Amino acid sequence: MKKVLKTAILVGTLATLFVGTASIASASEEPHIIYRKGTQGSFEGPANWFTGKVHVEMIFPTNKDFPYSNGLVTFQPKARSNWHTHPIGQMLVVTKGVGYTQYWGGKRETIREGDAVWCSPTVKHWHGGSHNNTMTHMAITGTKDGVNAVWMEPVTDEQYNKE
Amino acid sequence: MKKVLKTAILVGTLATLFVGTASIASASEEPHIIYRKGTQGSFEGPANWFTGKVHVEMIFPTNKDFPYSNGLVTFQPKARSNWHTHPIGQMLVVTKGVGYTQYWGGKRETIREGDAVWCSPTVKHWHGGSHNNTMTHMAITGTKDGVNAVWMEPVTDEQYNKE
Repeated sequence: MKKVLKTAILVGTLATLFVGTASIASASEEPHIIYRKGTQGSFEGPANWFTGKVHVEMIFPTNKDFPYSNGLVTFQPKARSNWHTHPIGQMLVVTKGVGYTQYWGGKRETIREGDAVWCSPTVKHWHGGSHNNTMTHMAITGTKDGVNAVWMEPVTDEQYNKE
Repeated sequence: MKKVLKTAILVGTLATLFVGTASIASASEEPHIIYRKGTQGSFEGPANWFTGKVHVEMIFPTNKDFPYSNGLVTFQPKARSNWHTHPIGQMLVVTKGVGYTQYWGGKRETIREGDAVWCSPTVKHWHGGSHNNTMTHMAITGTKDGVNAVWMEPVTDEQYNKE
């Protein structure tokens, strides 16, 4: 019994510490937070979400007051995301190059450095590099209940090529 | 009376048209919206909000599903915003150069290309170019009840210079 009690006290103390730490670390309680370049991680776009070579460099994560993350995504020519949706929408800002985007039922649109694209909540869409150019865009993506995207089927060559 | 009635009908019709148009134009009802570079307007930072030369080029406005606008703000060296707050916070992403930011009670921080800064709701702060460099940042700024900033007093040279 003694051991159980000690364990219970330890767990309780740890739980309190954890809650305390989480509370102190909560983004919303900081006057400001600086996310330094290169500290937020990066990854290659996984094959079950993307076609071709895609690199993602995170710029900032979500916080309690701002449920949006921002990743700088670079698509090689012809590389593209799968079709997908976002529960509370996504804003793209093209920072370099030329690419395409399309929503389900719409036409493929060409987007260039300085253009921004709002994709409404739950709208099925894709984005990627153009045939001959890389594209880099910021992807400011909303998260709801821990989900920021619902991934679907790849964009076929026929879909990608259709103007 | 006839004239009054006609006027009433005209006003009623115009109101219906207006509401109809507004509804069709509502951002949230579009699958996506493309904001082309250079179409969102630009302005010089007004003297009652800024010290020195500051240029703002809008990238995207708020929409019903995303109450954040984004302006690309360029500060000349030593130029800076007044002290101010944002009702639901602001995310800065530095796209060029070197600048400073500071919240009330905190230290002046140097920020560089690729850094991002979250400023929490209602926290008094300022941002600007460094002593010898211009800085350009995106300012992703939340709007609540039509207000995106509460402007306060200028940052004095003494405040600006203090490391």
